[in-house]
Amino acid sequence: MKKTTLLSAAALMVLLPSLGFAQEADTTPTNAEIGFIFTTFMFLVAGFLVFFMAAGFAMLEAGLVRGKNVTMQLTKNMGLFSLATIVYYLIGYNLMYPGDGWSIQGMLGAFSPTSLEPVGLKDAEPDLTYASVGSDFFFQLMFCAATASIVSGALAERIKLWPFLIFTIILVGLIYPIQASWKWGGGFLDGMGFQDFAGSTVVHSVGGWAALAGALILGPRIGKYKNGRTVPMPGSNLTLATLGTFILWLGWFGFNGGSQLYMDSAANVADISRIFSNTNAAAAGGALTAMILTQLLYKKPDLTMILNGALAGLVSITAEPLTPSLGVAILIGAVGGVIVVFAVPFLDKLKIDDVVGAIPVHLFAGIWGTIAVTFTNSAASLGVQLYSIMIVGIFAFGISAIVWSILKATVGIRVSEEAEISGLDTTELGMEAYPEFSKG
Amino acid sequence: MKKTTLLSAAALMVLLPSLGFAQEADTTPTNAEIGFIFTTFMFLVAGFLVFFMAAGFAMLEAGLVRGKNVTMQLTKNMGLFSLATIVYYLIGYNLMYPGDGWSIQGMLGAFSPTSLEPVGLKDAEPDLTYASVGSDFFFQLMFCAATASIVSGALAERIKLWPFLIFTIILVGLIYPIQASWKWGGGFLDGMGFQDFAGSTVVHSVGGWAALAGALILGPRIGKYKNGRTVPMPGSNLTLATLGTFILWLGWFGFNGGSQLYMDSAANVADISRIFSNTNAAAAGGALTAMILTQLLYKKPDLTMILNGALAGLVSITAEPLTPSLGVAILIGAVGGVIVVFAVPFLDKLKIDDVVGAIPVHLFAGIWGTIAVTFTNSAASLGVQLYSIMIVGIFAFGISAIVWSILKATVGIRVSEEAEISGLDTTELGMEAYPEFSKG
Amino acid sequence: MKKTTLLSAAALMVLLPSLGFAQEADTTPTNAEIGFIFTTFMFLVAGFLVFFMAAGFAMLEAGLVRGKNVTMQLTKNMGLFSLATIVYYLIGYNLMYPGDGWSIQGMLGAFSPTSLEPVGLKDAEPDLTYASVGSDFFFQLMFCAATASIVSGALAERIKLWPFLIFTIILVGLIYPIQASWKWGGGFLDGMGFQDFAGSTVVHSVGGWAALAGALILGPRIGKYKNGRTVPMPGSNLTLATLGTFILWLGWFGFNGGSQLYMDSAANVADISRIFSNTNAAAAGGALTAMILTQLLYKKPDLTMILNGALAGLVSITAEPLTPSLGVAILIGAVGGVIVVFAVPFLDKLKIDDVVGAIPVHLFAGIWGTIAVTFTNSAASLGVQLYSIMIVGIFAFGISAIVWSILKATVGIRVSEEAEISGLDTTELGMEAYPEFSKG
Repeated sequence: MKKTTLLSAAALMVLLPSLGFAQEADTTPTNAEIGFIFTTFMFLVAGFLVFFMAAGFAMLEAGLVRGKNVTMQLTKNMGLFSLATIVYYLIGYNLMYPGDGWSIQGMLGAFSPTSLEPVGLKDAEPDLTYASVGSDFFFQLMFCAATASIVSGALAERIKLWPFLIFTIILVGLIYPIQASWKWGGGFLDGMGFQDFAGSTVVHSVGGWAALAGALILGPRIGKYKNGRTVPMPGSNLTLATLGTFILWLGWFGFNGGSQLYMDSAANVADISRIFSNTNAAAAGGALTAMILTQLLYKKPDLTMILNGALAGLVSITAEPLTPSLGVAILIGAVGGVIVVFAVPFLDKLKIDDVVGAIPVHLFAGIWGTIAVTFTNSAASLGVQLYSIMIVGIFAFGISAIVWSILKATVGIRVSEEAEISGLDTTELGMEAYPEFSKG
Repeated sequence: MKKTTLLSAAALMVLLPSLGFAQEADTTPTNAEIGFIFTTFMFLVAGFLVFFMAAGFAMLEAGLVRGKNVTMQLTKNMGLFSLATIVYYLIGYNLMYPGDGWSIQGMLGAFSPTSLEPVGLKDAEPDLTYASVGSDFFFQLMFCAATASIVSGALAERIKLWPFLIFTIILVGLIYPIQASWKWGGGFLDGMGFQDFAGSTVVHSVGGWAALAGALILGPRIGKYKNGRTVPMPGSNLTLATLGTFILWLGWFGFNGGSQLYMDSAANVADISRIFSNTNAAAAGGALTAMILTQLLYKKPDLTMILNGALAGLVSITAEPLTPSLGVAILIGAVGGVIVVFAVPFLDKLKIDDVVGAIPVHLFAGIWGTIAVTFTNSAASLGVQLYSIMIVGIFAFGISAIVWSILKATVGIRVSEEAEISGLDTTELGMEAYPEFSKG
Repeated sequence: MKKTTLLSAAALMVLLPSLGFAQEADTTPTNAEIGFIFTTFMFLVAGFLVFFMAAGFAMLEAGLVRGKNVTMQLTKNMGLFSLATIVYYLIGYNLMYPGDGWSIQGMLGAFSPTSLEPVGLKDAEPDLTYASVGSDFFFQLMFCAATASIVSGALAERIKLWPFLIFTIILVGLIYPIQASWKWGGGFLDGMGFQDFAGSTVVHSVGGWAALAGALILGPRIGKYKNGRTVPMPGSNLTLATLGTFILWLGWFGFNGGSQLYMDSAANVADISRIFSNTNAAAAGGALTAMILTQLLYKKPDLTMILNGALAGLVSITAEPLTPSLGVAILIGAVGGVIVVFAVPFLDKLKIDDVVGAIPVHLFAGIWGTIAVTFTNSAASLGVQLYSIMIVGIFAFGISAIVWSILKATVGIRVSEEAEISGLDTTELGMEAYPEFSKG
């Protein structure tokens, strides 16, 4: 693991076969390789940031559910990320990029597992104008997993574990990649000129639609809506919810920044810089707006609204983090914050029980962000944006509703009343998250 | 979001305008661009590490306050970071870098919001010898926000939310950028030869001075000093305090490493490597010294002192993380650890109530670090270092004291006695951080 | 800290001596420097990810011990990382790389502190075909510290603090670097063709052997094994244990990816991409397998097993994260998950009390991963792999057992029965981690 091993050059060729390529080139990258290295490494860095969002979602959700359901929420998050990894490898990635020109051959190849380039690029002809397949797969996988994470929070505290995971398989293996291919796989929405830079619609609204279908079919938690009033069920750990929000905020730099897709020129890296700054600005705008607005409306700033305001700001800027100025980015995020503050009680009025606020944050702010593209990106047409939001919505909500309904009719999706009241941790898992600190 | 979209080349030019630049150059960066890409990407990576310090401060402070004030501490941290983002954009950044030669024109331009380079660097003439404006803004903003985070910990558990945030606006919009311009904006301290690599004085002591002024004017928590004795008020969650310290330690690699400002040569990246290693060494030296010292003094190692020892080590090396050898870096950090162990009870003796130890860590160790530059950097003069510490101190403490006094005299800065005793979370925010686990 | 300081060019040469080098080269890196910059920066990024694993271990362990021992666990983790930094600098690094050809001169130089390259590479002749010494030291140090972190979890809740730290000094200063030199320092195992890409054996099994020796000599916790039954002692905070697992998973991208050692060509960066994807796949395979298996065996998925399953998957792929396909990586990780599910109760049957499951995860899965190399890397011989596992095992277990025995016979390694029952936090440290939330 260090250069003294260079001494045994023969052993090395075996040890690190990849060096073969490099050494022929005398360890100095050729000009043609430099852009490839930059973009590939950028995908890896952006990818690990987006990976970390899995931890962010887990902390946010564990912090916002009640103590008796925390272990279950953590289990779901570990399970869904692991499943997403495996299913996206088996089918999702190739389905999302159905090959050149959407040919029959491409379609057939779509239902196949992902192959990475060979070790050391041996006998491969990498596309040096882009990045390695491995880095692209790694980065794209994290987007798919994020979509699934959105669902778990909304349906918390009452859904059965395994049916939720079966839904996750459909979501990450079919729903997400199929609609993503319409835009990012060079499909018909892309052809129409739909603009969705990093996925306000393709990622966030899709997660939100799946969550909304689930919440409607699953129904609210017992006791949440009583005699026309909404009963508060406060989260058990706001410190961890805040940590989760900060981790998501951090991960979003990779989410939006990496979606520039190239870091092989001064122009591209300057654009990525714009994206980082705008992403941060929108989050700040969303958080601060939620803070001021809850102060004005309720006389007290509401931390959970502030956290969701920051997240809604992030979702809002995701469809177009590049073209806005910093000031406009703050405003786009601020509208996200307003949406959250009004949408959370609005959903409660409709008796749609979204435990963590995922639907306002990811669906409503996702729609807003997709529309807001038209303010700063002249290539975007409002008609196409609205049409795309609708088409993706119908597809994601429709298929999700069908899958949730089938699951409900067959294996059932809801835990028993007793289990829900006692808490899923003791009844379903036999393991409390905070065994020493639970109430009486 | 992947290269199959390259097929529709026309659509692409619209989709990713930035590619225009790159494609003319045939996706291979020109030699002149390579250094720019390296340095810009370095700023983005260092910047997201420093961003994450906001989460570190939030966890550290939430862990060190009592359970009844945790939601308030989290709210302050989300609020101050969001405010710092917006105010630094509106005024701070341009004020900190008042243009070439401190001309009149530069001064006038200083009170203006930040403009980033245009998308795709279209019609721009970027300075290819440095980095993109967007990456520089992103990186610098995080330093400004860190300064504000320092204050919130010291004044915890008794300060009112909105007056604290008003002070934050002054701090990030005026106090921080004005004094930072004296050194980093090419001002008079820079002209004198003042050395402060990443800001032991410019960032940490300034945060510390603002905190000290606040602590003096705000007064100690009720019951903290009774009959000449200091009553311990233990933090509610040492695990999260430890996590916060580790996150800050992580972020410091970006804080100090990024302050090298260039990664466009072998020499610069080797220097950044030295800085990473030295920064880590100083933190270890501070932590271990605090551990051994508390064992010797109190027969028991004190975890909160160890955490603050690590942080004091980090602050101590921040003024000069490049020139020391690893051994000297450990020693510089170790002195930081000693400072913390003695300064915390010393402040208590003076009845200055600093809830998390921010003043010993950021102010005292910041002064020490600024002096310690003279041991290893021959360009530093002790006289200039001391003069600069004093000038910055007078300015930061003076203006802070004035602002705190005005706030105290007008809107008031302290919550009511009842609110303080009951806890800020229920009285000021109506929301507990751990509603299921609170005592009684 | 920004380019306006460029105005005072003379001051700058003093301020940032490193620029001297760059400026002569006209701020455009020479071709020979580009590979050096890429690889060095890669080590720094990978290094800070591995650094963050220290926080991951701390959170995992703090979450899996009981509330009364949390402060102690945190103190140990801060202490061991700080010690590892200092001891690896003083002796470990040079001992691990005993110089060219294992000459006498090299051996003598081995017992010396680490020297980094001079500031600005002044008068240095850096090896531009590799990376800076500072980045290599930073990266390697984190591996050494990880080894020590493995031990602290297994021996939790009953070991004395200072004897544990004395053992840590021996581990990071002698045991780890000596055996690591056999492979990574170009020693005899490397000469035989032993394959251990990122250290399933060199790091993980060594930590595991040291933990096993400690667990045997220390004995189980009071009350853990009663009348032939294993008494469950559930962890106090599964949210933090899950966070710790996610942080470790994140850090592993640096751990395995950085072990490619070069990022100076398209082939190398493509290989690092393969490694990232495979590492993630193996973790997912391990977690999902543990989830399904505990469902089948116990009718309920077990979160702590899922967490350890993910970690075992990561350890399993560490010896060869490059050559497997994604599918095979999932399977290699899945076997790691199986190992954990069966090994944890197996150790309990042997009355070996490993509080966090470190021995199954790091030792057993480490052995499995080292054997699994032979499935995909044709350069690996099963005989050499087994021989190396055995030799390293005998050395690490043997020396550890001797050191633990000497410590037991002299200063004692176990706290008093009263202290263990009351909890180490109040008795040994006088500081509770959650003072407001402790039971009755």
